[in-house]
Amino acid sequence: MEKLLVLLLFTTIPATCHVSSFHGGIPLPIHLLRPQSGSGGHLLEGISCDSWRLAVETNSVRNWKTVPVQCKDYVGHYMLGHLYRKDSKTVTDEAAKYAQSLNLTGDGKETWVFDIDETTLSNLPYYARHGFGAQPYDPKLFGEWVDTGKAPALPETLKLYKKVISLGFKVVFLTGRSEARRKSTKTNLKRVGYHTWEKLILRGASESNTTAVVFKTNRRKKLEQQGYKILGNIGDEWSDILGTNTGSRTFKLPDPMYYIS
Amino acid sequence: MEKLLVLLLFTTIPATCHVSSFHGGIPLPIHLLRPQSGSGGHLLEGISCDSWRLAVETNSVRNWKTVPVQCKDYVGHYMLGHLYRKDSKTVTDEAAKYAQSLNLTGDGKETWVFDIDETTLSNLPYYARHGFGAQPYDPKLFGEWVDTGKAPALPETLKLYKKVISLGFKVVFLTGRSEARRKSTKTNLKRVGYHTWEKLILRGASESNTTAVVFKTNRRKKLEQQGYKILGNIGDEWSDILGTNTGSRTFKLPDPMYYIS
Repeated sequence: MEKLLVLLLFTTIPATCHVSSFHGGIPLPIHLLRPQSGSGGHLLEGISCDSWRLAVETNSVRNWKTVPVQCKDYVGHYMLGHLYRKDSKTVTDEAAKYAQSLNLTGDGKETWVFDIDETTLSNLPYYARHGFGAQPYDPKLFGEWVDTGKAPALPETLKLYKKVISLGFKVVFLTGRSEARRKSTKTNLKRVGYHTWEKLILRGASESNTTAVVFKTNRRKKLEQQGYKILGNIGDEWSDILGTNTGSRTFKLPDPMYYIS
Repeated sequence: MEKLLVLLLFTTIPATCHVSSFHGGIPLPIHLLRPQSGSGGHLLEGISCDSWRLAVETNSVRNWKTVPVQCKDYVGHYMLGHLYRKDSKTVTDEAAKYAQSLNLTGDGKETWVFDIDETTLSNLPYYARHGFGAQPYDPKLFGEWVDTGKAPALPETLKLYKKVISLGFKVVFLTGRSEARRKSTKTNLKRVGYHTWEKLILRGASESNTTAVVFKTNRRKKLEQQGYKILGNIGDEWSDILGTNTGSRTFKLPDPMYYIS
């Protein structure tokens, strides 16, 4: 019986299981909290959280307001576990390989665009306390968190940032955060290792009613009109990398916690 | 000891493990072969197959020629297991929900575009014998397989097809298969349950040197010039749903076996 169980144990637990229960082995953990219970979210019948996440990441499932309630723990475990970090690393490694492959002319206009939230900075400390996206978005509470300026870097993106800087790219941060949060954003970026950039573009008051995809498209168009050549563009939302003037190559980081149109 | 093992067994095998070892429980299995061993593929250092698949599905990893050799069994298990089918169902269910939500005018121009390979038809019986994408693409062998006309339907897409037909959509099949394969394609489609369509668009001789994204964009543009309104568009490759005239809404089915630009 023992033998059978040991056998089962080793034959039925592939290395690709999604749920990692311990943080000890994760290099540079972003946040140490375990998923917490709480209310919020919506119920989807017969859902596979794994398949839901893939459909979200490929932009087949859109305009969702909250993580399905039965996937809250799944998303929490994913975000705090190894897989989120490996998924992020695979994308940033590919981006670094691509950046390295370009022969930059060094004309000072070769640009890499970074989104901020869940790309450059991680709001996991906030989301771990607010249901990992299963609770409705609360702009007031989230704004207070942003204003603390204490979001950690997503380590994989910080590494990519250092790489593109070393290769001679100009870095542009393009974020849906409002202009009112320029100071806290700037402080936060510098605090966690993003020390230099060409532009930090936030959403102006007159842009508050446009979708992210329109706002970001307009700002990228303006950048290109100013002579910047967007060679790379990375974000966690499809609205970071859809529209026009998206850049020569786009990279989609994982984010099963929220959707921004 | 037994108790501990049982405990471990139940606490460490989440429902989201990627590898399914038995086919018995899969509704309408497409293909019954187990993954076979063989040569082919390229080695990527330190890769997580799970993360590689996600990065492929989100179009962050592009222009790959073969499945990384160490992911061959992973991809084989994925394609033959439950998860591929659940991933497909999540996408087609979302597509059906979207189709249902539209109030069609019934003007005869409201169109749904379906790609064929790994969308409408499944080539799993072929790929199961050829390394699940870890062996380089062999146009001659693949062509011979296509000419048998024996590809099964992807059951999830067949269900979506029946749904959109019943809702009054015109169906257009848009495939990178060459015009020379019209007859075998038509026979195959009808044999597995796709009995009616508005157009079956294959790649003409003059289009053989364009990328799929250009070929498909041109053909969709032409459709819209003819008055068709593309309300939905589904495919397994990003080249099915990128470019222009992509349709009001696009749906990406999973396919970790090959990349078409």
